[in-house]
Amino acid sequence: MQALNGKPDSASLSSVRALVFDVFGTVVDWRSSIVREGQLLASAKGLQVDWVKFADAWRAGYRPAMQRVRSGAIAWTNIDALHRSILNDLLPQFEIRGLSEAEIDHLNRAWHRLLPWPDSVGGLNRLGTRYVLSTLSNGNVSLLVDMAKNAGLPWDCVLSAELFGHYKPDPEVYLGAARILGPAPSQVMMVAAHADDLAAAKKCGLRTAFVWRPLEFGPDHKPVPPAEGAVDIIATDFLDLASKLGA
Amino acid sequence: MQALNGKPDSASLSSVRALVFDVFGTVVDWRSSIVREGQLLASAKGLQVDWVKFADAWRAGYRPAMQRVRSGAIAWTNIDALHRSILNDLLPQFEIRGLSEAEIDHLNRAWHRLLPWPDSVGGLNRLGTRYVLSTLSNGNVSLLVDMAKNAGLPWDCVLSAELFGHYKPDPEVYLGAARILGPAPSQVMMVAAHADDLAAAKKCGLRTAFVWRPLEFGPDHKPVPPAEGAVDIIATDFLDLASKLGA
Repeated sequence: MQALNGKPDSASLSSVRALVFDVFGTVVDWRSSIVREGQLLASAKGLQVDWVKFADAWRAGYRPAMQRVRSGAIAWTNIDALHRSILNDLLPQFEIRGLSEAEIDHLNRAWHRLLPWPDSVGGLNRLGTRYVLSTLSNGNVSLLVDMAKNAGLPWDCVLSAELFGHYKPDPEVYLGAARILGPAPSQVMMVAAHADDLAAAKKCGLRTAFVWRPLEFGPDHKPVPPAEGAVDIIATDFLDLASKLGA
Repeated sequence: MQALNGKPDSASLSSVRALVFDVFGTVVDWRSSIVREGQLLASAKGLQVDWVKFADAWRAGYRPAMQRVRSGAIAWTNIDALHRSILNDLLPQFEIRGLSEAEIDHLNRAWHRLLPWPDSVGGLNRLGTRYVLSTLSNGNVSLLVDMAKNAGLPWDCVLSAELFGHYKPDPEVYLGAARILGPAPSQVMMVAAHADDLAAAKKCGLRTAFVWRPLEFGPDHKPVPPAEGAVDIIATDFLDLASKLGA
């Protein structure tokens, strides 16, 4: 796949000193990772489950759960707890029975063990020679830290919605990261595989890079690219992003 | 030097999953680093300055400056800005003249380039095989991130007073770190070369490790150890701490 936007305006990007990354879907392949964790559990416990459907259902509960926090319907609740609350509904729905509390907790922490796309670690290591690299994820800090240790993700800094008490796309998250790592928003570039995340970051003054992750929702669901001119860079993967940023 | 307290109570420490570190003085040798930065500047600009006195004076301004924030006398101000305000007073006092704004800014950012004690990187790499490692410093995030990149400090997470809007020893800092990395305070151990930092952490329920840094304030100023029984572990350096924690 070719990048839609091959030539970043290098003058406007020369002030960027930090890259902040969406994580679920952009850095790690949540779908394959959750399916594999389910299969491991099934193999250990003799379960019969459609783990692809299960993974998609778990992920589908994620935005509505965060929306309840964002709207003020419930108090601040971190992603571990939101994942668990969705999982509690899915277990009977998928007829997954006979798990101990420790086994359910281990399954819930599958999100701490998500594995990267094939180019993620290599690309981040290249980008890290030139930029400060941070997460900017709705995942809680301990989830992101466990994931990074497990997957070898070379973050310089782990920023999370949790630290700002707001979930993306609330502006407090992007502005908070910019203040800490910029301090000007134009010194920070948001990297994501999701056009809506980037649109919200751009509204706050951050630079933006869209990365294609064509398999995030499975081979049958192509991602929606950003509108023409909506982002500063479009890259096919993190290695391409590193090349486009001269790293 | 022998550890005063050789045997941690391993039962009470088995729940610890994250170590959070004071940075200035505990991980990095601010005094030698600032002296060396001053000497480099002097050599480039032909200055004659007592850089040891200068370093000590700069550091001496640090607590009173934070105290003005803690007491509410001034609004939240990060350490870069506090360092700069102290530096602005020191330059005429030490008759350091003829520096451009860029040179003064570079000198102020010497705190981003502080170098570790000889055992810090090796010790942290050992401790990181077993624990989540985070800073818990009054330094701002970008200072800590630049320092880690420059010095090879293998943090899993960079937590700072800045993220909590309070300076240590305010309890919000220790409790915030515990909530994020614990979540129980007893799952987090504060590591510092300063008994007062550890006393404040302990009050919040964190576990505590004191590390001797006999040269922090120069060879003529011995550090004050914690009172008998006041901390969980006393270690001679980070390698000794790793051994005592089985890492």
